[in-house]
This record gives sequence, C-alpha cells and structure tokens, in this order.
Amino acid sequence: MTRNIHSEDKPGASLIHKMALVGAGRMGSLHARNASAHPRLSLVAIADHDQALSAKLAAETGAEVAAYEEILADPGIAGVIIASSTSSHLDNSIKAVESGKAVFCEKPLSLSADALAAKLPDLEAPGAPVFVAFNRRFDPHLGELKRRLAAGDIGRAETLHIVNHDPAPPDPAFIPRSGGLFKDFTIHDFDTAAWLLDEPFTEVFAMGSCLVDPRVGALGDIDTAKLILRGASGALCMISNSRRTGYGYDQRVELFGSDGALQVDNVPGAQVQRLDGAGSHGAPFHYSFVERYAQAYRAELDHFVAVLDGQCAPSTGPRDSLRALRLADAAEESMKQGRPIVLGDQEVL
Amino acid sequence: MTRNIHSEDKPGASLIHKMALVGAGRMGSLHARNASAHPRLSLVAIADHDQALSAKLAAETGAEVAAYEEILADPGIAGVIIASSTSSHLDNSIKAVESGKAVFCEKPLSLSADALAAKLPDLEAPGAPVFVAFNRRFDPHLGELKRRLAAGDIGRAETLHIVNHDPAPPDPAFIPRSGGLFKDFTIHDFDTAAWLLDEPFTEVFAMGSCLVDPRVGALGDIDTAKLILRGASGALCMISNSRRTGYGYDQRVELFGSDGALQVDNVPGAQVQRLDGAGSHGAPFHYSFVERYAQAYRAELDHFVAVLDGQCAPSTGPRDSLRALRLADAAEESMKQGRPIVLGDQEVL
Amino acid sequence: MTRNIHSEDKPGASLIHKMALVGAGRMGSLHARNASAHPRLSLVAIADHDQALSAKLAAETGAEVAAYEEILADPGIAGVIIASSTSSHLDNSIKAVESGKAVFCEKPLSLSADALAAKLPDLEAPGAPVFVAFNRRFDPHLGELKRRLAAGDIGRAETLHIVNHDPAPPDPAFIPRSGGLFKDFTIHDFDTAAWLLDEPFTEVFAMGSCLVDPRVGALGDIDTAKLILRGASGALCMISNSRRTGYGYDQRVELFGSDGALQVDNVPGAQVQRLDGAGSHGAPFHYSFVERYAQAYRAELDHFVAVLDGQCAPSTGPRDSLRALRLADAAEESMKQGRPIVLGDQEVL
Amino acid sequence: MTRNIHSEDKPGASLIHKMALVGAGRMGSLHARNASAHPRLSLVAIADHDQALSAKLAAETGAEVAAYEEILADPGIAGVIIASSTSSHLDNSIKAVESGKAVFCEKPLSLSADALAAKLPDLEAPGAPVFVAFNRRFDPHLGELKRRLAAGDIGRAETLHIVNHDPAPPDPAFIPRSGGLFKDFTIHDFDTAAWLLDEPFTEVFAMGSCLVDPRVGALGDIDTAKLILRGASGALCMISNSRRTGYGYDQRVELFGSDGALQVDNVPGAQVQRLDGAGSHGAPFHYSFVERYAQAYRAELDHFVAVLDGQCAPSTGPRDSLRALRLADAAEESMKQGRPIVLGDQEVL
Repeated sequence: MTRNIHSEDKPGASLIHKMALVGAGRMGSLHARNASAHPRLSLVAIADHDQALSAKLAAETGAEVAAYEEILADPGIAGVIIASSTSSHLDNSIKAVESGKAVFCEKPLSLSADALAAKLPDLEAPGAPVFVAFNRRFDPHLGELKRRLAAGDIGRAETLHIVNHDPAPPDPAFIPRSGGLFKDFTIHDFDTAAWLLDEPFTEVFAMGSCLVDPRVGALGDIDTAKLILRGASGALCMISNSRRTGYGYDQRVELFGSDGALQVDNVPGAQVQRLDGAGSHGAPFHYSFVERYAQAYRAELDHFVAVLDGQCAPSTGPRDSLRALRLADAAEESMKQGRPIVLGDQEVL
Repeated sequence: MTRNIHSEDKPGASLIHKMALVGAGRMGSLHARNASAHPRLSLVAIADHDQALSAKLAAETGAEVAAYEEILADPGIAGVIIASSTSSHLDNSIKAVESGKAVFCEKPLSLSADALAAKLPDLEAPGAPVFVAFNRRFDPHLGELKRRLAAGDIGRAETLHIVNHDPAPPDPAFIPRSGGLFKDFTIHDFDTAAWLLDEPFTEVFAMGSCLVDPRVGALGDIDTAKLILRGASGALCMISNSRRTGYGYDQRVELFGSDGALQVDNVPGAQVQRLDGAGSHGAPFHYSFVERYAQAYRAELDHFVAVLDGQCAPSTGPRDSLRALRLADAAEESMKQGRPIVLGDQEVL
Repeated sequence: MTRNIHSEDKPGASLIHKMALVGAGRMGSLHARNASAHPRLSLVAIADHDQALSAKLAAETGAEVAAYEEILADPGIAGVIIASSTSSHLDNSIKAVESGKAVFCEKPLSLSADALAAKLPDLEAPGAPVFVAFNRRFDPHLGELKRRLAAGDIGRAETLHIVNHDPAPPDPAFIPRSGGLFKDFTIHDFDTAAWLLDEPFTEVFAMGSCLVDPRVGALGDIDTAKLILRGASGALCMISNSRRTGYGYDQRVELFGSDGALQVDNVPGAQVQRLDGAGSHGAPFHYSFVERYAQAYRAELDHFVAVLDGQCAPSTGPRDSLRALRLADAAEESMKQGRPIVLGDQEVL
Repeated sequence: MTRNIHSEDKPGASLIHKMALVGAGRMGSLHARNASAHPRLSLVAIADHDQALSAKLAAETGAEVAAYEEILADPGIAGVIIASSTSSHLDNSIKAVESGKAVFCEKPLSLSADALAAKLPDLEAPGAPVFVAFNRRFDPHLGELKRRLAAGDIGRAETLHIVNHDPAPPDPAFIPRSGGLFKDFTIHDFDTAAWLLDEPFTEVFAMGSCLVDPRVGALGDIDTAKLILRGASGALCMISNSRRTGYGYDQRVELFGSDGALQVDNVPGAQVQRLDGAGSHGAPFHYSFVERYAQAYRAELDHFVAVLDGQCAPSTGPRDSLRALRLADAAEESMKQGRPIVLGDQEVL
C-alpha cells in the first residue's frame, strides 16, 4: 500500500483521506452522505454556486462551504467528487487534475465526444487519477454476473439484453440540457455492454419513439428506444429504454452464452409476498436509481479509496466515458439517418 | 402383458377395458369424464341412487345407466370406479371384488379403521385388485420430488412439512358425515407423509382450533389444525391444515434432508406476471383440488390401466388406507386427550 | 350450431367430425395423436409418400392409410390436417379447399409471399375455411396475457419483447429447405407481434450472426438474430432469436404498457425446487415446442372443432400467414441491405 | 428531543453518544463495528477478560481497552453494549443500570427465567433503559410483514409458521453452555411469535430429535425440533428448528390470516440466476445470521440511538426476554414430560 501524501493518521484507525465535493444537488448529496459515513474518508469541503444548497449539505455532513478554487488550492484535500452540472464535468475534472487531486466524476465526463477526446491528454496526467463513476459496474448483482461470466459459467458470451427503464419521465425542462436520451440515459447501457461483452462494437442501430410525453417529442427528443449493437466477434446486444414504467426502476441484464444464460432480475424492495384471491403479490421494486444502486454508490467510494491508497488505477476512466459517448453519438446518427452506423477504428477506440 | 378376459380388441388400436362407475356426484363425474376420454378405457355403465344424476352423466360420457347389481353381473366389465358416498365405499368395494372386478376406489375406503381391518381379507382376494386413489401420489410435481429423494438428491430425509389448506370451508351440513377434519382432509397428508418418509410412525400429536366457522365448532369439529408425527428413525413431520385460505388451494410439501431440501410450491394457474406500482403480481393459484390435481386424476387412471393390463399391482391399496385411518384416529385421540399418542405395533401395521 | 354434413351422430355423445391427415412426420404425428384422442374428432385416414411412416401412425391411431386423392374424394371427411413438407402446404391446402374440406394447416402456408398472395382467392372459397395453426395464439399463458391486455390491465401497449430461442440447432441438412431463419423460426414471432400489438407494422430491421454452427453460415443462413419492428402508432417490438440455448426452449413475451407491464416467463417442467449449498435450483424448462406448447396443440384442435361446428371462422387464416411472410421477407431484405425496410401498404395488408 | 447528559456536540453534525462494549467475541465485534460506523455513536471503550481480543477490536474500531468497572465509572459514557458470555448478561446489565447507563444487551438476558424474574425490579430503574436486542424485530423484511399485518392486509392473524434452521451445527463443546436448543436458538422464534401474534400463549408442545450430530444427543440436547404453540385466541403457531441445512441460514416466516397470507422467504445473496440444462439456478442464500441480519443489527443501533435521544423506550426489554425464556422452559418441560404444557398466568406474564 502506497502512503498518500494527502492523508493523515488517526489514532486507533486507518488512514483517512480528506475529500471535497463540487455540486450539492441530488447526486452530490448522495455522494456527500456516503463519503461522510465512509470509515476511510472525511468530507471537509463542499462547493456549489447555490450557497444555500451547499450550506445545508455542509451542515448535514460536517463539511464546510468553500469555493471550488479554495478546494483546489488546499493541499490537504486528496480527492474531489464532481457532481456539478454535466456541462461543467470536464472543466472541473481538468482543474482538479491540474491541482493534483484524484477525481471521482459522475458520468458522463462530457456531452461532446470530440471535446472529451481533445482533452484526454489533460485527464491522463500521472498522479491524479480520474475515476468516472458508472454505477452499474459496482452493483453487487451485476458484479456477480460478471464474475460468473469470467469463470466460464455460460461459456462464450454470445448475446446480451439490457432493460433500462425509468419509473417516470423527467420534467420536460430538463430535456434540453440532458444531452438527449442516448447521452443522458442509454449512456449507462453503452458502458455496461462494453464492460460485459468486453469487445469493440462495430455497428449501432437505434429506433425510437415518443410515446410517453409529447412535450419530449416537441423538444426533438424521444422517450422510448430499442437499440441493437454488433460486436467485433458477431456478438449482438439489444438495449431497451423507456422514460416511464409505472412500476419503478426496471433494471435487468441477461447474457446468453454458448453454454447457458445468466440473468440479473429486478430487486424487490422487501422480500415479502402476499397471497390473496388475485394470486401472489411481491413487494414494489426499487423506485429509482437512488434505492436500486444504493450499494453501488457506496462501493464506488470503496473503489475510490483503493485508488487513493494507490492500490489500483480507476476501473473506469476518461476513455470508457469517451467510448460510451461515441456509441451515443452513433445511436443519434442512426436515428437521424434511419440506418445502422458502422463504427470506424477511431470510434471503436 | 397379461391379456385380460374383460377386454376386447379394437381394430387399429390397443386393448380397451370396459369400466363402470358407481356414484355420479362431483368426484364420480370427474373420474367418468377422464375414463371416457382415456384411449384405453371405455366407460359403459353408471350407477347412482339419484337417477337424474346418473342419466345426465351417462348422456355426457356415452355410458348407460345401470343398477350396481347389473354392473356386477356383467362379465364384460373389467373394473369399477367407486365414487359413491364414503360410507358405502367399503361395501361397494367388497361386492366388486366378489364379482371379480378390479376396484378403483376414491379415498378413504372407510371411516372406521376397525371395520376396514376386519374386512382386509375380503379385499385382498387374488384376481381382483383394489386400488385406493390417493391423488397426491400421482401429482407430477410430488412425483418428481419423490424421484429426486430416491435418487439421493438431499441425502437422508430428516423432516417433512406439509401445508394442506382448502380455499373455502364446506357447507356445515357436510361436517357430520365427513368423518371430521382428520379423516376427511388430513387423511391425504397422513398418506403423503407415509409415502415420502417411507417409515412407520411411532407418535402423533395434534392441536386444533375452530377459527374459520363457529358452526363447525358447534358440531364438535375443528377447521384449523397443526400436527407433528414422529417416525421410527426420529424423523419428524409437521402438517398444517386449514379449511379456508382466501387465496385458493394451498398445497405445499417440503422435505429437509441431510444434504439439502426439496420443495414443491403452489402451482399458479397461468405463468403470467403483472408489474405495477404495487410490485409484481402472479396469477391466481389453482382454486381447488379439481384444477390442482387434474393431471393426477388422469394419471390415476393410467395406473389403473396398468393394473388392468396385469403389469403391476395397485401402488396403494387397503392397507395404505388403513394406515392413514389409524393415524387419523390417533390424531383425534390426541386432540381428545391433549397429549401425543404413542402408536403400538398394531397401529403401525 | 350448424349441423355439418361431414359429421355423424354417435349414440350418447356429441357430433363427431371425421378427419384425415396428410404428412406423417413429427408435426403430423403430434396432430394425429391429439385428433385421435379428441372427443369430438375421429381420425380416419393418413396419407404420406412414405408408406411405412403412414402405416405406423395409422396403426397407432386407429386410422387407415390412404392416398391424398382418396381422402379428398371421400365425402365423409370433414377436415384435413396438412402437415406435409412446407413446400407442399399451399398446393395441398388449395386441393382440400377445392374438395370442400376444412383445412388445418401447419404454419407457414408457403415460403413465398408472392405465391401465397396469388392464391389467396383460391384459399378463401366459402364453405371451406382454412385455419393456419400458429401455436402461440393457443397457449394458455399467452392467451391470459392477451386477455389482460384487452381488459386494460396495463393501459395502452407501447413496446413488446419476444424471446424465442430453440434448445439446439437443427441438422444443417434441414437449412436449405427451411426457408431460412426468418421464415422457419421468426415467423412465429411476426405473427405473435401482430396478434398482440394489433396494428400494422411500418418498419422492420434485422441484425443477425452465425454464432452457433458455422455450417449454417456456410449455407448462407444465420442462427442468431435480433430484430426491431415499428408499428403504425410508434409502438416498438424487439425480437430475439437463437437456434441454441443449452437449457431448453426459451419462450418469453413481455409487453410494456402505459400503466404497467405483463410478462409470460418460461414454464418449468415441474414445480420442484432443490436447495443446496450452491443456492436454489428449479426444475428444467420444457425442452422443445412439443412439451412447451402441448396444451396449445390440443387447443388448436378445439378451435378447429368450433370451426367445423360452424360456430366461428378460423382465428388465423391465409392473410395472417401472408402478413408474417411479408415481415420475414422484409427482415431478409433488411439483413441483405443493412438497413431498416419501410413497409408499403401492400406489405402491411 | 430530550438532550442527554452523556452526549456531546460535534461541530457540523448531530449529537454523538459515547458508547462502550463489554465482550469482544463474535457478536461483540459485530456490534462494535456497527457502532463505530454509526454517525450518531462513538465507541470509546471495550472490555473483555481476554485482553488480546479487546486490544485487537479496539485497534480496529478506534476505541480504547478498559476494565468494565472503568467503563461504569466514566460519566461520559451514555450506553453499554453487552455481548459478553450469556451467563454474565444479567449481572453486567444490572451493573450498567446501577451506573445509570442505557443497556443494549444481546439476547437472552439470562438462561434462567426465575433468576431474571427476581431481578426485574433492578432492571427497570428509571433513567437507565434496558434494550434486549432480538434481531428479527429489526429485519426490514419481517418489519414490512408486521406493518402489513397491522394495516389489515390479511385480516385477523390465525396461524403462524416459522422456519429457523442454522447452516451447520455448532462445535459440541458449545452445547453444555448454550442453555440447550430452546434457550439458545428457539428463543428467537418465541419472541418473533409473541411479536407477530401479539397475544399471550396458553399452551406449548415440543417434539425433538437428534438427527444431525449424535454428540449433541450424548450431551442431552437435540438438534432438530418442531413445536406448536397455542395463543389465547386459538391462534396456532408452528416452529421448525434444525441445527443444519446444508444450504445456508433458512429463515422464513408465514402468517395465515382470515383474508390471505403474508410470507417472508429466504433472501438470496445476489439477484443472479443461471439457466442451464438442469434448469434455473438462483444464487446461494445468506449463510448465517451475520449476513442475513446485517441490516437488522444496524437498525438495532438506530433504535438504541432513539432510546438514548429520549425519543422512545426500548421496543423490547427484560419482560420480553422473560416471556421468551418462560416459553423455552415450557418447551423443555414438554419434551421431558412428553405432553403439551399449559401455561398459567405467571408464565404468560
């Protein structure tokens, strides 16, 4: 274990890393609470343009309000969690790297693949690792699926099905700054597919509709999509997206192999079943990513601690984020042109 | 295969056995329909004190109405299905045996263990096999559990749990002639336990309550019971009975062994699931024995055809019925005396 | 109920319809056994070029061997089951119609949409109904899903997922005469999608790979495919096909609506579960269509009896078969051109 | 919220309560880790006769090693977690109460109901609440079942089934000091039954066998038991215990009501399923109480914090522990006498 200079010893406990947060919105609050409860982390500073927001979160977590520049200038802070608005992820990450901080950035690093590609050298400086937090990779259920696949439980992976449906559509006001369905939502599935199939994709096809909220369609976006991706080996991946289920957050992954299949089904909120004249009734599923991936968000921080400890490099970084963005761009292009997009070497990375 | 004298050849098909039925009520109708649809059986005659009932069932199945004496006197009839009132099962069976007919008798053969024991010699005449139809033994799901147990899938059987709950309580008018909960209802579980554990029982304890319908209690019966049986090896069996679930026919068996457990859960009526904001919803369970054991009733006839063909002896006969009755008597005695009943050699058979 | 001239009265039973079969192979045998066991049908004649095959099946079912011409000439025969080789389905059906027989034809009526379209008038003669047997429509589980959809259980249907995977690939020798994956296998899914979404399709996209058996690829076919169909309302349908699962016949349908989802999952062969150190283990799934759709094949005959009784028209006929074929052609064309195929009015029917 | 004198303010965070632990074995370590991670607790001292054990746990959790007397004398310590050997629970609890500390005591408070009854007054001093930690009451799944029962989801509770089976038998050396199966293991079920049925029990019957490890039998104990309890309303409760499943920790509760049933089934360790030729395979269940009740142990501390905050009294205290012990005594007596034990007013409490 490499001793990190940004850390301190606490009597009777392990090394504690000091952390700061930029962005005190929903995701920032979630990460702030987890960081402040983590036995190896101490959340010391929170920055947000909205002072009331950062003050409230600071009071709750025992951190202090600070300007982002103050955070960057503080040599005692080892890492920065970036949960500001998506459009500022890239800039904030680069600034943190330049200040020698380790970066924990919410996905996606950018909404522009080209902008991200141009900045890759700035994000890959030695000594300031950049972790892009794709929550699926840290879910224990999907992790178990990945382990079993690696152990050869189903032979060679042939095709992959991903269902990723949100419980309820977002406020239409969010749509224009969302980056569109593929960059805002499908981005997770692109990364999951790349992670599980572990091969470059050569072709992307997307078909979409606006079935849930006509205001989304009026803004030029879709709320329902089906995609097919082809991998270099001929492996095929189907992705289903919807902005509204009516029954919670539908998160399923199924991998068909040469020797069987592996499935991760939805996780019920409680293991309770009622029997009555209408049949059997399981408990509601987790409503949103907050509940479904609660363990994953904590595990992301565990991984980040290992990165801070010098035990490993980030398992997902800027290049993974770029790959997912390239796939999202291809999906948009496929919708626009009404045909599958063949990915060249550059896009495949 | 032994050629049976009661049968005939049909061109282009296998040997057909002629059958008669006594008792055209609910169980009789069920068996009559199955027999008339069976490729190896021809239902030719139906007897019942209620002429309208037998005429209706005869018209539906292509059989003729006949007196039981006529049936017994007809040398062309190979076997008789006895589904008359329980109190006449024993007499009707003995008469059929004396006429050289094979007997397919609905459980139980009698409500009196002593009466049945006294008549055992009459029921065990050579050439006229007596089959007592315990439906659980012919259920494909329980059959698979039994096969896996025999194959050593869970090592040595140690304890057994049986849930046997009816959807809705019977008309209180039925209670006085039912023989009481243990002989009318638990009788199935006593036979199932004997079949699965395959060892003599040495002790029986029953605790019961009248929780569903106070009129049942006023008639001196119970509608809810829990029983514990001990086998000679120390194996333990728990039985749960209720006259009312509110959600259909609850039929579950679970066998705990030295190397794992085997479970037969309730069978949904359809493999359909609905997801909504309240969670996941499976289809209603089978409502009653008619649906739940539909396959079993057909398989009983398949087995009876094999008996008629001379391929095997009945898998359950008068002695199994007697054992179940002795256990029911012990359960009643346990309730009366408020203590477990130790079974002597005679009761164990 | 219209009295049919091709039928006879049997004392004590309902009207019996006389049936003949052409084609004594696997599907023919299945239908022959069901017809001979059906209380309302009498299978009297079987035709096949392979005399040994027809003789064997005739002996088993009590029918007689006959030439197809003899069957057509027999005024007593009410209906013909056509289970000969696919290439002869259309001719045999037309001949039967011309002879005034009702037709029960295995899917598909033809491998050529244009040939079928040209013959539609010949297949729609009054008095000789043509039923094309798409088994999914008669499955009780899918039927329940359809009923619940119609009852408004999930609001408006928005997207549909179909998984249709075979347990093991066919003999490569079968591929050249199969019509290819889309006409041989996906044909079911095209019909299921049309049945469940109940709207015309406007666009078809297919991506396929040969992942299971390279000999299939050498013959110009694929064994793995993913398809997306768009309906006129914007509804989207995803279909997944594979020639090999390694775990039996994977048959799943899932319908996402504006107010929830409905799922038909795989049906286990037995409701038995084993618990051991590795977890819980359900019983194997049905291995093939023979087991999975056993009830559906019987229900097809029930429907055909209702057609023979004059109670209803066939629920699926030549136009449904043509629609499915047009969709299969579009899928092939999509693969060939590497783009989605937009369906014109003619294809939509 | 009552301000507690044993607590302190921490800048930017809520009130923190100082805690100590006595007993650094398996349960002590588990509680120590949870207390040290709890945002509202600070574990400051650990006492154990085994100095090495307490030193190791202190190092891990940031607490200090102390003698129990020092802990009791420290006015800054608000509460004591008692996880020492069962035989010392009662004495240690009383000492803590006398020192004005709130008590968090592992179940059971004592192995002797009479000894506990005699000391009840000492345990019920004002200002020093005694919480007896029965983990089932804090499990989210059982909590949801309890909430639904209270909400009337299944009408009036009629019968209750509890399955409580351990994965593997303990070292026989543990048996003599365990208090026997009923006090060591079934004690949880007695409390769960009292909690869920919420009525006094009037009768207890137990039947047991030694089926797993003959050394347990040689020591006069059993490793397999089935029990039936009767409640004052006639409600019946069945309990199944085993010291060995071979497949993990089997923890199931089922409540049958006048209007349906509620079930809590086993919780799989991961929501992953494998499909292969042998069927479907779920992930292993939680192996032991450590994993299965991990959330419950954390929730116990949340409840204890609320007690320390003065927001509520302990949800379970000495009288609950005494009731469970009385039921365990009755079960032992039932085994000894071979009959059900009728509980008098004193035992019922």
